[in-house]
Amino acid sequence: MIKSELTPADPDFERRVRESFSRQSAMKTLGVTMASVEAGAVELEMPFQKSMGQQHGFQHAGVIATVMDSAAGYAALTLMPEDSAVLTVEFKANFMSPAKGDRFRFKAKVIKAGKTITVCEAKALSEAGGETKLIAALFGTMMAVRDRGIAG
Amino acid sequence: MIKSELTPADPDFERRVRESFSRQSAMKTLGVTMASVEAGAVELEMPFQKSMGQQHGFQHAGVIATVMDSAAGYAALTLMPEDSAVLTVEFKANFMSPAKGDRFRFKAKVIKAGKTITVCEAKALSEAGGETKLIAALFGTMMAVRDRGIAG
Amino acid sequence: MIKSELTPADPDFERRVRESFSRQSAMKTLGVTMASVEAGAVELEMPFQKSMGQQHGFQHAGVIATVMDSAAGYAALTLMPEDSAVLTVEFKANFMSPAKGDRFRFKAKVIKAGKTITVCEAKALSEAGGETKLIAALFGTMMAVRDRGIAG
Amino acid sequence: MIKSELTPADPDFERRVRESFSRQSAMKTLGVTMASVEAGAVELEMPFQKSMGQQHGFQHAGVIATVMDSAAGYAALTLMPEDSAVLTVEFKANFMSPAKGDRFRFKAKVIKAGKTITVCEAKALSEAGGETKLIAALFGTMMAVRDRGIAG
Repeated sequence: MIKSELTPADPDFERRVRESFSRQSAMKTLGVTMASVEAGAVELEMPFQKSMGQQHGFQHAGVIATVMDSAAGYAALTLMPEDSAVLTVEFKANFMSPAKGDRFRFKAKVIKAGKTITVCEAKALSEAGGETKLIAALFGTMMAVRDRGIAG
Repeated sequence: MIKSELTPADPDFERRVRESFSRQSAMKTLGVTMASVEAGAVELEMPFQKSMGQQHGFQHAGVIATVMDSAAGYAALTLMPEDSAVLTVEFKANFMSPAKGDRFRFKAKVIKAGKTITVCEAKALSEAGGETKLIAALFGTMMAVRDRGIAG
Repeated sequence: MIKSELTPADPDFERRVRESFSRQSAMKTLGVTMASVEAGAVELEMPFQKSMGQQHGFQHAGVIATVMDSAAGYAALTLMPEDSAVLTVEFKANFMSPAKGDRFRFKAKVIKAGKTITVCEAKALSEAGGETKLIAALFGTMMAVRDRGIAG
Repeated sequence: MIKSELTPADPDFERRVRESFSRQSAMKTLGVTMASVEAGAVELEMPFQKSMGQQHGFQHAGVIATVMDSAAGYAALTLMPEDSAVLTVEFKANFMSPAKGDRFRFKAKVIKAGKTITVCEAKALSEAGGETKLIAALFGTMMAVRDRGIAG
């Protein structure tokens, strides 16, 4: 069996994660909402944003990456101690289908939680006419930063 | 010597690239301008966007990635045939310093131009008080797609 | 529901994949065996290779990446037409725990199979004293190349 | 101007890096030699390894990645304090041309050196008949680990 390490260090993680999320002006601007928060997993949603298109009118790949990154960062934060802030060290994203649809769903989870480094993955799904399609995936490295007075 | 393959297939590449860029609503929304276009290299600029912050008020990492991705994609497009559209297959970005500053500069260039696949890198620099700092870098894979009636 | 696209184009894929694998001298040198082949999924195994250590005696991260890459490439090849060769366009790998143990298991699967581009993921698990541990993960882009007389 | 942070913390870095390199059995097995070591940059060389081929007889992509990873890790280590060990957190590699040739050269340098995290890039060049060709590039995240009695 693969050992799970997904125990939250702070039982009040959901409140802390939602509070930090509410401070991301980018999420507000993009109309992103937090659908669910669990230990090691976060789900975000975004309606199609006409103001964030690429040259063919699809959603810009970078915007999909932006929301996957937020989802992954907050999935990591659920497991970090109370006084931690989360930073994205790096991520890699693959774009598998054009980002079109009525709305998008972003599912992130922690793959490995370490003391300093947490590895996460996120998937982006498009929804249109009852059909759900995997359009992108992200694999990223998050870092816990402590004692900076910038928790979250 | 390392063989260069940075010869544009379409001498009119700059016009084509600028025209496609002007159709990216995401770039308009983010206040991004195209500072320069050369064969195999593109430079973009963006003033700090308060509406695109993360939880500590810095620019969201995903937004920096979004503009690096556009810069890289257009660097790739400069070398592609006239009837090509460019798609981001994937990218990887490292975030090295908090994205704060008055404005940001994004320098992308082609590392290897192939018939189907073009590999690019981009760097993001912050500018504040006369100081320029490397804050992020992207390494990505772009694909030329032809004959779809969606050139650019 | 997420649409599956994991139907093999060539019903004889297992024979073709095993035959190609047997031609990888790197796999022979590293003592890697092919544990299973299914449509869209491949599992490889490797005993600890003392000759492939890093400076602290653990398995070199690159060797773990090498076998994850082979596993991912062959997972992609299971779904490709008979006359296709598979090339690794790029991959990204995270190393989550030191690569120590008696043996390693590599599980790769296709995330999205396209006509040209196939996206795969692979995980590396260490086995020691009855315990299995996730030590690394790879996310990569494979390309089908056809009509070159180098199928596989 | 972009601020350089490439000052070695340990003036004796070359001896330390070469000593650590000499303990990587993987490098010995692959016939890799250390051509040069500077503050923030390392160059490695490898003759073509017939025992490390992929299915068409080219060098396995993973082997090229392995040596790029070592080069990048040691470039990072040149700038780390004396009692530091370097670990690969993650890397991403693009493979741009088939890895064929008489020998390969691997040039790594530090992009950003931080206290915990160092970002590096590496390039792999093939050499054959007087021609040098860029065949692969790596972009990776290294971490300094201290006080473990496993320096290097």
